[in-house]
Amino acid sequence: MEANLHSYPALPIVRYGVSEVIESTHPSFNKGDLVWGITSWEEYSLIKSPRNLIENKEMDIGFLLIPGSFYRIQDTDVPLSYYTGILAYAGFYEICSPKEGETVFISAAAGAVGQIVGQFAKLMGCYVVGSAGSKDKVSIFDLLKNKLGFDDAFNYKEEHDFNSALKRIGLYLYRIRYFPSGIDIYFENVGGKMLDAVLLNMRFNGRISVCGMISQYGNDNVEGVKNLFSLAAKQICMKGFANRFYYHLYPKYLEMVLPLIREGKITYIEDIAEGLENGPRALGELFAGRNIGKKIVTVSP
Amino acid sequence: MEANLHSYPALPIVRYGVSEVIESTHPSFNKGDLVWGITSWEEYSLIKSPRNLIENKEMDIGFLLIPGSFYRIQDTDVPLSYYTGILAYAGFYEICSPKEGETVFISAAAGAVGQIVGQFAKLMGCYVVGSAGSKDKVSIFDLLKNKLGFDDAFNYKEEHDFNSALKRIGLYLYRIRYFPSGIDIYFENVGGKMLDAVLLNMRFNGRISVCGMISQYGNDNVEGVKNLFSLAAKQICMKGFANRFYYHLYPKYLEMVLPLIREGKITYIEDIAEGLENGPRALGELFAGRNIGKKIVTVSP
Repeated sequence: MEANLHSYPALPIVRYGVSEVIESTHPSFNKGDLVWGITSWEEYSLIKSPRNLIENKEMDIGFLLIPGSFYRIQDTDVPLSYYTGILAYAGFYEICSPKEGETVFISAAAGAVGQIVGQFAKLMGCYVVGSAGSKDKVSIFDLLKNKLGFDDAFNYKEEHDFNSALKRIGLYLYRIRYFPSGIDIYFENVGGKMLDAVLLNMRFNGRISVCGMISQYGNDNVEGVKNLFSLAAKQICMKGFANRFYYHLYPKYLEMVLPLIREGKITYIEDIAEGLENGPRALGELFAGRNIGKKIVTVSP
Repeated sequence: MEANLHSYPALPIVRYGVSEVIESTHPSFNKGDLVWGITSWEEYSLIKSPRNLIENKEMDIGFLLIPGSFYRIQDTDVPLSYYTGILAYAGFYEICSPKEGETVFISAAAGAVGQIVGQFAKLMGCYVVGSAGSKDKVSIFDLLKNKLGFDDAFNYKEEHDFNSALKRIGLYLYRIRYFPSGIDIYFENVGGKMLDAVLLNMRFNGRISVCGMISQYGNDNVEGVKNLFSLAAKQICMKGFANRFYYHLYPKYLEMVLPLIREGKITYIEDIAEGLENGPRALGELFAGRNIGKKIVTVSP
């Protein structure tokens, strides 16, 4: 059983992407179907033994890591990159158990996962602040506050002391607040010094969802995290997750997210690089933190 | 309402101890009662407003941290230091969700909490290895393997590479194994380099219970933990806890542990310093890792 796919990879590190089936002898996949899963960095992929993730109930790790496991996309009236948003959904709802009124901090908040988590948290009635890095302060504010509805945002590159940045207060005229009485939920995307500062500012029974630690990838001189004792002192739960463990939530995720997208209650900012030849540069920009929004490489529009 | 207590503090850092009521005008406490809770480093304590932890259902943090909150001991036919074992119970059963056959590693395994966790894990049918530090290798082996029934034990002071120590294999004649296929549960008492090595050796869906990080207390030059990305990659849950959040489990804990103690299925090794005047030295020995068993200071036998 084979399926020929025309692929447009997204989220380069794990090579997840949306592809179109251009030829198939497999009963679960038909010509013209759009599928989501692990693809290679190539224009056309020959998948010798494709697997349908939803039909196949055995969700073991080894199996899910194999390229060729696909989820067949049924709703095509919404932007296709939403189909990769399961990471935000699982990381926020399943790991953080958010409650109305809680304080939420998101690092790399303009990225693929952070921007969606922030919007989920606002819909939940949380106070949400995101950090991101950009050359100009204005674009971060504009994106996170005005476009995505975060309560506040800061550019970590302009802060020399993350601890005081997180504690920031001030109110009245230029209403600022952040976390003078602590953070309930931290959505971790960066690691290193930011995590250390966050640990000092977490509240009792806080939850940290470890989605990634991009500051630490490919860094020979990894910054050690020194404030882990806060975990015991404040009874914090810090849990890592990878989307491959949450495929079973896919139908639940789509049921929640599709109406929100259609009603315009969730916006998705994409940073698109066109053409496979721009893939390596796009990946470099992602690691340098130069993307504003979800970094996508399109092979074909 | 007042209660005069004759106190014998145990577990010096948090000053938890067992005391005898020598005079009381409070309805919940009578002369001769033995109570467990936070006491001062003194022979006699005057508690102006004692609270009965079990009768009082509001278990908020501020309240539980106030010295003067006591649990009244009802069973006095077993060694009194068992009453401080709630930390082992909560940390192991509530945080680690252990399952039969899982692999368990415990640092500071000869300490107050570690020794009890190890025995709970053996009763559960887990493979259990503990590390501890002592001048002579023999005493650790004797204590953890022969007296407490651990599967294996090592002296961390004799290991220059914790990563390979944890992976250790060998079998046959001198049957050694440890964790060639990884650790399911790590009961964390030390922090620093040991935690970093453990993170590299955790299995998918592993659980780390952060009870303490004694290597990091009073250490100006805290060792940063560098391998936290393992949390995401292996979907590990690392959760801190403090006994003050688990007082409500006290009746459940005693119901389980008292029969085990009476049947001799759980042994408790104590390292007793007699007399309040030896308290500071005992505390120093605890931090230097020189205690074998639970460090206790008795004010009065």
